[in-house]
Amino acid sequence: MNYQPIMQGIFEEMQKEAPLGTVATYIPELADINPDQFGIALLDVDGTHYAMGDSEKRFSAQSVAKVFALSLALRHAPDEVWKRVGVEPSGDPFNSLGLLEVEAGRPRNPLVNAGAIVVSDILLSVCDNPLDELLAFVRAMAGAQDIAIDEAVAASELQTAHRNRAHAHFMRSFGNIHNDVEEVIGVYVRICAIAMSCSELARAFAFLANQGRSLPPSFRLDARAIRRINALMLTCGFYDEAGEFAFSVGLPGKSGVGGGIAAVCPDRYSVATWSPRLTKGGNSYLGTRALARLTTLSDSSIF
Amino acid sequence: MNYQPIMQGIFEEMQKEAPLGTVATYIPELADINPDQFGIALLDVDGTHYAMGDSEKRFSAQSVAKVFALSLALRHAPDEVWKRVGVEPSGDPFNSLGLLEVEAGRPRNPLVNAGAIVVSDILLSVCDNPLDELLAFVRAMAGAQDIAIDEAVAASELQTAHRNRAHAHFMRSFGNIHNDVEEVIGVYVRICAIAMSCSELARAFAFLANQGRSLPPSFRLDARAIRRINALMLTCGFYDEAGEFAFSVGLPGKSGVGGGIAAVCPDRYSVATWSPRLTKGGNSYLGTRALARLTTLSDSSIF
Amino acid sequence: MNYQPIMQGIFEEMQKEAPLGTVATYIPELADINPDQFGIALLDVDGTHYAMGDSEKRFSAQSVAKVFALSLALRHAPDEVWKRVGVEPSGDPFNSLGLLEVEAGRPRNPLVNAGAIVVSDILLSVCDNPLDELLAFVRAMAGAQDIAIDEAVAASELQTAHRNRAHAHFMRSFGNIHNDVEEVIGVYVRICAIAMSCSELARAFAFLANQGRSLPPSFRLDARAIRRINALMLTCGFYDEAGEFAFSVGLPGKSGVGGGIAAVCPDRYSVATWSPRLTKGGNSYLGTRALARLTTLSDSSIF
Amino acid sequence: MNYQPIMQGIFEEMQKEAPLGTVATYIPELADINPDQFGIALLDVDGTHYAMGDSEKRFSAQSVAKVFALSLALRHAPDEVWKRVGVEPSGDPFNSLGLLEVEAGRPRNPLVNAGAIVVSDILLSVCDNPLDELLAFVRAMAGAQDIAIDEAVAASELQTAHRNRAHAHFMRSFGNIHNDVEEVIGVYVRICAIAMSCSELARAFAFLANQGRSLPPSFRLDARAIRRINALMLTCGFYDEAGEFAFSVGLPGKSGVGGGIAAVCPDRYSVATWSPRLTKGGNSYLGTRALARLTTLSDSSIF
Repeated sequence: MNYQPIMQGIFEEMQKEAPLGTVATYIPELADINPDQFGIALLDVDGTHYAMGDSEKRFSAQSVAKVFALSLALRHAPDEVWKRVGVEPSGDPFNSLGLLEVEAGRPRNPLVNAGAIVVSDILLSVCDNPLDELLAFVRAMAGAQDIAIDEAVAASELQTAHRNRAHAHFMRSFGNIHNDVEEVIGVYVRICAIAMSCSELARAFAFLANQGRSLPPSFRLDARAIRRINALMLTCGFYDEAGEFAFSVGLPGKSGVGGGIAAVCPDRYSVATWSPRLTKGGNSYLGTRALARLTTLSDSSIF
Repeated sequence: MNYQPIMQGIFEEMQKEAPLGTVATYIPELADINPDQFGIALLDVDGTHYAMGDSEKRFSAQSVAKVFALSLALRHAPDEVWKRVGVEPSGDPFNSLGLLEVEAGRPRNPLVNAGAIVVSDILLSVCDNPLDELLAFVRAMAGAQDIAIDEAVAASELQTAHRNRAHAHFMRSFGNIHNDVEEVIGVYVRICAIAMSCSELARAFAFLANQGRSLPPSFRLDARAIRRINALMLTCGFYDEAGEFAFSVGLPGKSGVGGGIAAVCPDRYSVATWSPRLTKGGNSYLGTRALARLTTLSDSSIF
Repeated sequence: MNYQPIMQGIFEEMQKEAPLGTVATYIPELADINPDQFGIALLDVDGTHYAMGDSEKRFSAQSVAKVFALSLALRHAPDEVWKRVGVEPSGDPFNSLGLLEVEAGRPRNPLVNAGAIVVSDILLSVCDNPLDELLAFVRAMAGAQDIAIDEAVAASELQTAHRNRAHAHFMRSFGNIHNDVEEVIGVYVRICAIAMSCSELARAFAFLANQGRSLPPSFRLDARAIRRINALMLTCGFYDEAGEFAFSVGLPGKSGVGGGIAAVCPDRYSVATWSPRLTKGGNSYLGTRALARLTTLSDSSIF
Repeated sequence: MNYQPIMQGIFEEMQKEAPLGTVATYIPELADINPDQFGIALLDVDGTHYAMGDSEKRFSAQSVAKVFALSLALRHAPDEVWKRVGVEPSGDPFNSLGLLEVEAGRPRNPLVNAGAIVVSDILLSVCDNPLDELLAFVRAMAGAQDIAIDEAVAASELQTAHRNRAHAHFMRSFGNIHNDVEEVIGVYVRICAIAMSCSELARAFAFLANQGRSLPPSFRLDARAIRRINALMLTCGFYDEAGEFAFSVGLPGKSGVGGGIAAVCPDRYSVATWSPRLTKGGNSYLGTRALARLTTLSDSSIF
């Protein structure tokens, strides 16, 4: 299938959309970004690459990168991951710490902050240098050796990560964080501060569309892990708008407050969008619209 | 694709499974059922029907029937449904009433009890006789004019439906129930007391696999409604094991405490299983196992 | 001690207070009351009675009457009461049903609605006619044979008691309501609809100030029960302003949304105030102010 | 009144009590204490001092010391305290962090951990050296210049204070902690690690019984602050057994997991007990029993 006309059509439609939503403002590095940018990149499973708009500009991957951390942890220590993190949607945005309290410090899933913090803790325990290894993994998949952590973003995040520290200390009180909290938060925040472009994200997510075939040999994951990640992205990838995204787009994916979304249509393509204005639920407004158009025009919703 | 060998294989495997899980015991009509039954029926989108085991025995559809109630309500009053019920997973099994309190009486989705009670209330408002109309809908789809409500089950349910009444009165305190609570609970309980077989459920769910083409003319639903129902079943169809089911089976579906599960693989097939022993999460133990085998053997997980 | 000058002074001060707070509006019988009334009556333990302002006008006792229901239940079945209701503050206004869920249907204390509903259920089980007996109890203590239930108030309450019904059905799901829910709610609502004046309330609360000596022979309570009721009123008598009232007034007491407050200074006096405007917390604004002045001027805070 | 025979009687009764309850074991310094000790000391408002048993042995004051921290903060910055901390019971032991989330980081009262952490933060902001000043305050009141922080206890507490750190970081995310979290926790933990005897505690609490007259000149508190502290101790001083203690003892007081309890009967006496075995609710088992006997025998319950 030739996705070029669809991509072209989506790009043109998005130019006409009203500038709805607001950029994240909790750190200056996100607040100061030009909100009116839009990029999209798609890689089909045959390797053809399509891109439009600001598809090559790097932005802060933020929570999209939780998928890489989870993948790496599943490569090293799948049993440890599922012993310490659940697989169910959290569905309770107002009360995440209360929920942790009831569930004895075990986060609902690895894509909410608490879960990704436990994943970071596991990486600290099993990797010699988790950030180096994660970057190697991402660079190999994205085909770009200069992908890096934006240290200015990480520094700002560290100044405002009070709630994440609260989660980590709280889970530590239940024995579900094994390393020093400040070190764990340091890894977690740096993972989220990776800067990537839409084209790089589309390439880096390709393994979730092609049953893992594109994974570098040293990062192989079995079919079960791939399916688990996709199922988790579908049910838990979009904060408290996961159900809405499952309906409107119909693809497993993960969003970040930097305005990025990466998603996959199994056996067809991986795709990434970027546009900084966010819905109330914290997901890219234009990105969600664009992906909804994509699955409609290419008839590729999984539902 | 010929599903016969797969069905045969699944049936044989299930015979060898240990009798894990326990039947629902809160009403005698469920507690007294022989727990060691197993049936499966599959209808592919071309109309070929496959069945094994106790596939023709009727059982209490219970929460599987919430999908019919939702479909009928979406036929009549989609805006009303989405104004009064959400589309997100609830993820908080211990605290369903507390969650209602925080969200001002609006249930998280139409497949949790509170949501299905609101759907029943809407049916009471928009249908002359909601139960007659629902039965007509289900009979037409299943091709069986003698499908009926098991009044003994309904009577028992009414004696134990205290928590559902609590939900209904609570939502009424927020104005989200419009009819008399006892009447609403009567409709809700009777919908869940419909008795159907696996073969009938597979036929009745076919419209969710064939984009609505098999719907009777007077019950047409547009593609958006179909996709919405499928997305909801995927994210919310299995209580607090929705994420686990999404991974292990990889199909949208809905379970009931009577031991039934109905699921669909869009553009390929609808399927139903029945086995009364339940997991801790309230889903059929063998049914989940059988469907996991089905998607593995037929490579039909949507992930 | 001669309380007359103090009462006179309080009355004059209250006339000068700005008309802050708003009357309860959820039923017309409360909404339509002239908000600018104020009455106060005090009975010292020697039997001297003092009164000012609208002290003889009857108003809806509402939750103040929960103290009578609790007293009567403690007379009949103290073990049953403490088996089924706790003695701790609830402190969680936003989530009363959620809290019930966690504590398996046992209300935190007998002065919150859920607790008073269980008390009503106990009265239904142990009294031939709970409302007749409660009225006989209150009339004997208040010395007024024409104290009665305001049936117009009760009828309006019954039309809006959805949340109380939710609590009752929910507790019934845990086995903590034994009688028909509608019958229990009927008793509960009628108890709260008793109409009394400040002077009558001061007399009816005298037993809590004089260690039970003024109780009619057939309603005797031991010292432990008296102390328990006073301790509960101090910690739980003013919704989510119990701590504030303990500080500003420093007496055990109970308020109602009809604008009444009854309180006691052990071994010194019982007192009641009435003024319909309420604080955000649901307690009489002027009543609280007047009682704070009373304990300051008479040096009778228990702290 | 001569309390000597009462004290003697209580001491003898306590020797005969079965060794119920268990000592706190979360740090070795508490776990290793001989559990079968019991001391009591009472200071009447005329200055007569009574003591029995292990009344002169120092133990870890733990949460009893929160009263000193609050008193010092009220001396320096009362408006700041009540702007940042509430005065209502928390009543929700299972979900303290969830409650903080709902109330935007403002603890329910200054005697729960979260509240005492905010008080510690305030002391850090307003005192040149909060620990030195607190010790000076306590030493002056207790008349013992060698009262000190048990640094071994503090060091152990710091190793296990994960949940307190979680609370602090969480409140910081709402802007309700102004200083470095680790520094705040350091102050909080050291305050709780003060070691004092029953006789010293009885003397140090005397100001709450004598309307502040015994306060050193540089630590004067007005009558409102004294009343506020007493009201808070009554409603919030005993974790989730505050209502039970208010009934059984009937005095404002504060307990600690080291087995100490300090309480006051306004205008009559202050009293302290120590016995390391704790109830399920975390309060000294024998201490509560002894104080209940004291108020019964001396007729000094405030109810």
